Amino acid sequence: MENTLKKPMTGIIPPLVTPLLDNDKLDIDGLERLIERLIKGGVHGLFILGTTGEAQSISYRLRHEMIKETCRINAGRLPVLVCISDTSIVESIHLAHVGAECGASAVVSAPPYYFAPGQPELAEFYEDLIPQLPLPIFLYNMPSHTKVNFAPATIQRIARNPQVVGFKDSSANAVYFQSVMYAMKDRQDFAMLVGPEEITAECVLLGGHGGINGGANMFPELYVDLYHAAVARDMETVSRLQPLVMQISSSIYTVGQHGSSYLKGLKCALSLLGVCDDFVAAPFHRFNVPEREKIRKALEALPFCPELKP
Amino acid sequence: MENTLKKPMTGIIPPLVTPLLDNDKLDIDGLERLIERLIKGGVHGLFILGTTGEAQSISYRLRHEMIKETCRINAGRLPVLVCISDTSIVESIHLAHVGAECGASAVVSAPPYYFAPGQPELAEFYEDLIPQLPLPIFLYNMPSHTKVNFAPATIQRIARNPQVVGFKDSSANAVYFQSVMYAMKDRQDFAMLVGPEEITAECVLLGGHGGINGGANMFPELYVDLYHAAVARDMETVSRLQPLVMQISSSIYTVGQHGSSYLKGLKCALSLLGVCDDFVAAPFHRFNVPEREKIRKALEALPFCPELKP
Amino acid sequence: MENTLKKPMTGIIPPLVTPLLDNDKLDIDGLERLIERLIKGGVHGLFILGTTGEAQSISYRLRHEMIKETCRINAGRLPVLVCISDTSIVESIHLAHVGAECGASAVVSAPPYYFAPGQPELAEFYEDLIPQLPLPIFLYNMPSHTKVNFAPATIQRIARNPQVVGFKDSSANAVYFQSVMYAMKDRQDFAMLVGPEEITAECVLLGGHGGINGGANMFPELYVDLYHAAVARDMETVSRLQPLVMQISSSIYTVGQHGSSYLKGLKCALSLLGVCDDFVAAPFHRFNVPEREKIRKALEALPFCPELKP
Amino acid sequence: MENTLKKPMTGIIPPLVTPLLDNDKLDIDGLERLIERLIKGGVHGLFILGTTGEAQSISYRLRHEMIKETCRINAGRLPVLVCISDTSIVESIHLAHVGAECGASAVVSAPPYYFAPGQPELAEFYEDLIPQLPLPIFLYNMPSHTKVNFAPATIQRIARNPQVVGFKDSSANAVYFQSVMYAMKDRQDFAMLVGPEEITAECVLLGGHGGINGGANMFPELYVDLYHAAVARDMETVSRLQPLVMQISSSIYTVGQHGSSYLKGLKCALSLLGVCDDFVAAPFHRFNVPEREKIRKALEALPFCPELKP
Repeated sequence: MENTLKKPMTGIIPPLVTPLLDNDKLDIDGLERLIERLIKGGVHGLFILGTTGEAQSISYRLRHEMIKETCRINAGRLPVLVCISDTSIVESIHLAHVGAECGASAVVSAPPYYFAPGQPELAEFYEDLIPQLPLPIFLYNMPSHTKVNFAPATIQRIARNPQVVGFKDSSANAVYFQSVMYAMKDRQDFAMLVGPEEITAECVLLGGHGGINGGANMFPELYVDLYHAAVARDMETVSRLQPLVMQISSSIYTVGQHGSSYLKGLKCALSLLGVCDDFVAAPFHRFNVPEREKIRKALEALPFCPELKP
Repeated sequence: MENTLKKPMTGIIPPLVTPLLDNDKLDIDGLERLIERLIKGGVHGLFILGTTGEAQSISYRLRHEMIKETCRINAGRLPVLVCISDTSIVESIHLAHVGAECGASAVVSAPPYYFAPGQPELAEFYEDLIPQLPLPIFLYNMPSHTKVNFAPATIQRIARNPQVVGFKDSSANAVYFQSVMYAMKDRQDFAMLVGPEEITAECVLLGGHGGINGGANMFPELYVDLYHAAVARDMETVSRLQPLVMQISSSIYTVGQHGSSYLKGLKCALSLLGVCDDFVAAPFHRFNVPEREKIRKALEALPFCPELKP
Repeated sequence: MENTLKKPMTGIIPPLVTPLLDNDKLDIDGLERLIERLIKGGVHGLFILGTTGEAQSISYRLRHEMIKETCRINAGRLPVLVCISDTSIVESIHLAHVGAECGASAVVSAPPYYFAPGQPELAEFYEDLIPQLPLPIFLYNMPSHTKVNFAPATIQRIARNPQVVGFKDSSANAVYFQSVMYAMKDRQDFAMLVGPEEITAECVLLGGHGGINGGANMFPELYVDLYHAAVARDMETVSRLQPLVMQISSSIYTVGQHGSSYLKGLKCALSLLGVCDDFVAAPFHRFNVPEREKIRKALEALPFCPELKP
Repeated sequence: MENTLKKPMTGIIPPLVTPLLDNDKLDIDGLERLIERLIKGGVHGLFILGTTGEAQSISYRLRHEMIKETCRINAGRLPVLVCISDTSIVESIHLAHVGAECGASAVVSAPPYYFAPGQPELAEFYEDLIPQLPLPIFLYNMPSHTKVNFAPATIQRIARNPQVVGFKDSSANAVYFQSVMYAMKDRQDFAMLVGPEEITAECVLLGGHGGINGGANMFPELYVDLYHAAVARDMETVSRLQPLVMQISSSIYTVGQHGSSYLKGLKCALSLLGVCDDFVAAPFHRFNVPEREKIRKALEALPFCPELKP
């Protein structure tokens, strides 16, 4: 079965957007198009209900539906990773069980994000949580949203439990990523994954295992090719593809005024590409026409851009 | 009926702890003792499921139960304010409806706390949310947890809707509180409430309407008396009571190493006072014996401390 | 002599702007007008080279000149407090000696602001510094600029040395101010002063000793009157004057887009009032005509505004 | 002449510690040993008076002495870069002129670090400063200390002036570094240098030009070899050397409790290696015996450690 988890997990595992029709309604057709696009694009796994997936912005009912529909559409073709980050341990455990029942391969968890725990509290929280989970777990560092970093020593402590199979870092702090990689160097089966697509190549060149890259929702091949080039240490290809990644980053994710620009830009682009609706859940709204036109131009400026929707 | 909302809402409205037996089990006996203690202590309302109430740490099922049980025990004696802060607008609306059905008087809402919205996004979020709520709403500023402050102009904009009846500020920033009070000076029916008990007296002296003070879970009379003294501009009483408030703050909320010290200390003290269990929901744990003994000593050092539980 | 330091120091001690003609030239006429205006307005001391005084933005030569000229013009009429905050202990000590030679009464020191020290390092720094100072010292908390707060226990430790005679807090965090006041409650000779004018009244009502209020550069009488009203617990006068303080704060300090709005607005207003030039040292510039016109309107809206310069 | 600036500047340019005997006394013998060690180690330039050089902690007199002595000892063998970061533009310009007179090749400037300017203010500051400088300038991003990041668009704006020849980033944010590199991609003569040694290899692999690495004070060859390996895309050597860089980082820079651990650990190691005194200027102190013994063990654990001083 393809959905067995490789150890360490490697490759490009896109953090799927959650296609929506309104604040409580899944765009199931869009989700099907998205998943087929990703699988066709050669990605190595599907990561759902993360930050890009707006999990925190949607109801539990809808999160459960998203898990079920993703696993149904995927039909065992790729490992599915379900993000269970929550402020309530009870709800996190419940999400993990829904994932296991639907056939997901692993869960991913960022620290509770209302109270910011101290490092010993963070370790104890995961020591409480993990034995109650039916699946392997990846830790997820997202300090801009959770207000806390996993100290490298905390990761070492939590990862004494072999159920912990990897780490996703979205801090963008490369010194930190190197520190965690160095702290975990004796765990050959432990996946070191990075969130931001802008630095996946360099992290993989230095020994990281892959990227959970939002841009892969739009253009999975680009990120997959860059990943393979970095693994193969084919620096010529890296040097050719990295500027395209930066072009996307600096033209599609920066159209708005606020931190939500990335999410709004990504969903807007997916809509223009005909993949799914661009509805963004509260507290945000989709881009209006002027921003949408900027995104259109940014897409059209890409050398590999297909025909866009009107 | 006493549970009709005064405009502006005034007085001491304690943010109730949520008495727990485990991560998903309410300590109903403890809740009854707590509510009777508060009503007997002269408080002016009951505020549930706030930060002190660990709402984010417990399941939705349990949040609903807490609303129902509080309203049942209160039996219309005091206005009940239900905090509906959530990252999902759908869940917030649902909580508000549960509150309305159970007889609560108002809801309270801090901004979504995973994504940090920009100011226009924040205003638009509340403009979306409020028409879907069955009760009046208080805005709740809690920047250390939500990563965003309501700009005074944003409050003005949101409060054009008369359903918005007040503001609770837990920033501790007194310049900010004065700025909001000044911005809202023409809305005589708009309640300006402050979170931290250490500054309730000064805020009320300068025109604020009351405090949502965690310490009132333990000693409601102290905070009620201080509030009345500030309203009456009885500075002698203020000067006598304020050091007691500071003694509690500096001896009971500072025993631990982390931001959770306040919550753990408060629940530990309530347990020693025989009010309710000291279980603290994940990601935290109750204090161990050495910290509990420090809390005991801190309580015993108070001039009005009753006999404590062993 | 009037310039002997009262213990505790009380009242309104304005943080003087440093009137400038260019980045390295003092506006001496302006400084004379400013000091005469302040003394006539009834202030209780002169605080120079603080944040409002742009000390960090000007050369050491100019800082020394500012000390000398202020002491010359003051001619012993009021105590002069010289802020010696610096990143280099050697330069701080030098500034203190210049102050002592010119007849200043005390120095004021915020923590070094390039490296952010830990609390024990902060205590050790002051334990090194203070014995090398020829004058009494006030500690100055300015965390938005220095990236560090004095913990109340650190202040207690440093203030074991009786040369430490007070504390100025510009954090705006009223819980923190109360905590420090409570920690220092046994030191009757220790001045608890607050920076932001918006909260001087409430701090004084709760036992603080005065304010180091920038607005007093413009309208010393207003802040002096508010201070006296708060001392006298004349709540009617407090309630009448506090909104004027807030009107100034919200109309004169908020015209620009950046943190520099306070400083630019204050200097612009002083220029319109005919007190001194509005040159602001690098990295900033004075306001342009559109902002200047807004400041003019804000001043004209004040009930006590004199005729303005064209 | 070797001290002519290559464009773009490339290689390892160590940020020299400032060897001190006390708060105001240079350890000139130590400085001579340090510079000879660095030149022998193959470094490509000398960067003085940066963060590692404790420039902000020492007097102007001593900063001038450090410039003069470094240039004297270097005797034109390598380009000398003088950091002129200051809160006062007048003092920055003065430092730059001292540098030019002594034969330095360029200056480096982080934003003024007391007031945090907005982006337009930051651009205007440099537009004021640069025409007054006698040497080419590198911009220096150090947000943890200056509280401000150069936005990529701000760098583009400032660098329209060809006197701006490069950028040093110490943010550790690799997404940011990629963004700046992408924004400056058309300026082939513009050096993109990175501060943290832990990420120099990856930055150079992705097109960066070199590192301003503190560890090179101790072991210049290691960082020079890693740099050359990254330039040559010799991934085998990169993979062999990078863990040594991480071993130093995680064992020598993390012995203390505070942010000063890096500086204290580095100076302590240099003392054990017989290079210079370990005096650290106020607000810090050198490590005591227990920490020194930890540093000794960390050094002895390195495969290339020479005999240490007792």
